[in-house]
Amino acid sequence: MMLQDLPTPCLVLDRPVLLRNLDAMARAVGRLGVALRPHMKTAKSIDVARLALSGREVRTVGITVSTLAEAEYFCGHGITDILYAVGITAQKLEQVAKLNLAGGDVAVVTDDPDTASIIGAHPRPPRTLIEIDCGEGRGGVAAGDLALLDIGARLGNALAGVMTHAGHSYAGRHPMAMREIAEAERAAAVLVAGRLRGAGMACPIVSVGSSPTALHARTLDGVTETRPGVYMFGDLFQAEIGTVAADGIAVTVLASVIGRRPAERRLVIDAGAMALSKDRSTAGTANDRGFGLVLDVMGRRSLGRSLVGRANQEHGIVDLDPAVAMPEFRVGDRLRVAPNHACLTAAQHDRYFVVDGDDTVAAIWPRVNGW
Amino acid sequence: MMLQDLPTPCLVLDRPVLLRNLDAMARAVGRLGVALRPHMKTAKSIDVARLALSGREVRTVGITVSTLAEAEYFCGHGITDILYAVGITAQKLEQVAKLNLAGGDVAVVTDDPDTASIIGAHPRPPRTLIEIDCGEGRGGVAAGDLALLDIGARLGNALAGVMTHAGHSYAGRHPMAMREIAEAERAAAVLVAGRLRGAGMACPIVSVGSSPTALHARTLDGVTETRPGVYMFGDLFQAEIGTVAADGIAVTVLASVIGRRPAERRLVIDAGAMALSKDRSTAGTANDRGFGLVLDVMGRRSLGRSLVGRANQEHGIVDLDPAVAMPEFRVGDRLRVAPNHACLTAAQHDRYFVVDGDDTVAAIWPRVNGW
Repeated sequence: MMLQDLPTPCLVLDRPVLLRNLDAMARAVGRLGVALRPHMKTAKSIDVARLALSGREVRTVGITVSTLAEAEYFCGHGITDILYAVGITAQKLEQVAKLNLAGGDVAVVTDDPDTASIIGAHPRPPRTLIEIDCGEGRGGVAAGDLALLDIGARLGNALAGVMTHAGHSYAGRHPMAMREIAEAERAAAVLVAGRLRGAGMACPIVSVGSSPTALHARTLDGVTETRPGVYMFGDLFQAEIGTVAADGIAVTVLASVIGRRPAERRLVIDAGAMALSKDRSTAGTANDRGFGLVLDVMGRRSLGRSLVGRANQEHGIVDLDPAVAMPEFRVGDRLRVAPNHACLTAAQHDRYFVVDGDDTVAAIWPRVNGW
Repeated sequence: MMLQDLPTPCLVLDRPVLLRNLDAMARAVGRLGVALRPHMKTAKSIDVARLALSGREVRTVGITVSTLAEAEYFCGHGITDILYAVGITAQKLEQVAKLNLAGGDVAVVTDDPDTASIIGAHPRPPRTLIEIDCGEGRGGVAAGDLALLDIGARLGNALAGVMTHAGHSYAGRHPMAMREIAEAERAAAVLVAGRLRGAGMACPIVSVGSSPTALHARTLDGVTETRPGVYMFGDLFQAEIGTVAADGIAVTVLASVIGRRPAERRLVIDAGAMALSKDRSTAGTANDRGFGLVLDVMGRRSLGRSLVGRANQEHGIVDLDPAVAMPEFRVGDRLRVAPNHACLTAAQHDRYFVVDGDDTVAAIWPRVNGW
């Protein structure tokens, strides 16, 4: 099967690019001497997870997930050491307990004293990490917060460590800023682990991570594991902030031309907001790519700065780069679109059509979407 | 089953609101004397389609769809008179031909002479409408374009009429502007139908429509059918431009509180970019609702202007309205979020939990997503 034969729009995964990205992260994390717990929120695929966990110069310790649907899916495929890295509720705790009763080892996170009490009183509590805020201002207790020891005490034997996520690393634009954020992430987690230990509590896991901070950290002393995710696929935004190379974007949306306005140097393609998502992450960067950068069917950047300038539900309006000579496209021709944000674009699709740098479909890998 | 028992995030559909919206559109279109061909791109549900087609004072003539997955799904559920309203390609033509061979009556649209030739030469061509641009500047030939008669001639016996969509009606902000756009949509379609007929070609179908223009048109003389869709559910944006009433939003996302920062009047909920989409349609309006307006679990606007100010993948950051007295929320509490754009938010979910104005789940209706 060839890309030219696939129904469009659909999602293409370029395996050699994926493998290069996996290698680069394994080297970076291996050098830092901590374990890698890859976050599967982007790929949501057992096939990708197996590649991410295998045969590189880094120690791996299971995976991270963003939904309980992912936890259940990966447990069902034999990956049982899982951190569910979104704050737990009492109701979701019961779902986790069921998974763990069936052979899973799903750990959870909380920053809430009431929830910590519920976990501590549970007959089969999952391993629980206290979520720390290292500057992102989303979830987590601050490193100096008095509530920390209270939460630890309420968790009792369920306490397994601390975790933090420097999501604000996405706002970094220079390697030096990234390094500073990575150090703030490390320092917050290690400080809090020390406070818990100083109060006589066990804190075996000190978990940090985002793709930018995992790549840019100079040291992760005191940390036990890191949890990058989007590095596997990369996207236009991550390329812009230097987390992946410009040729390090592994997922693209295959689209067909469904309309043409040569006089306006414009095409209409069948990848709109539904196939691409409405993510506009590159809007704030030096290279605004609209709703995605348009590539040729082989995934090459032969169309210059051509981009999806408008995205209706099933229509993408492509503004062709006037500075680049290119063939005149006809209705039915194929193009590929590199996404602003791989996590959100991939989630619009239920499978990957895997290629090895060419236009032959080598495999079809399913995804686990939803909740 | 109660809303309080559902796993979150999930999609709630309030049936009485849906029925009110269906009634309002049926009255408006019935008064205009044209047939209603509801667009199922928003609802993507056979249960909703049956309600939209039944028992009101308007003549209905099948449905409109935005994907071939929808066409196949609705054919499989017995609704065979379908307009696939996105420009066809030669490859998709074969998929349509298969559906029609199996009992479907799926009509297609094109604005491309080459594609018209392929359709005209097909052994079993579907009924085809020529797409006209009435000012949106997306797809379609201009009303005065010389290509029109050429496309009509190439289609031969497959030619079944013309269609246009005033997508730019979404940019209208006042009833008068909406009326003008509705009239431009009508006039373009009728003018082109006249040109085809004047050249001796048959043009039985003159199809127009968007929710705003269907509601605001003063006359649809010469038109045979209209294709509104988002009116069924409504959303914050449609409420802002007056297509539905403020209490006319039928779909909301049910979410759980997963974090709290009372000092900052902020909550974290488990409906983020994945559950809500990153649509920011209300950003350009007088009432910017962030990534969604936050309601209480019963769907009431008891939380004032509280909104989802930030949307990470599985985290929504809620900024609570400081001007409104409200209970102190705890982790695990339920809220609902009204969407900016119902089409995109609903597409993040695979089913509806249907309620009748309360918190009891009366039914579960599946959706057909993807392509």
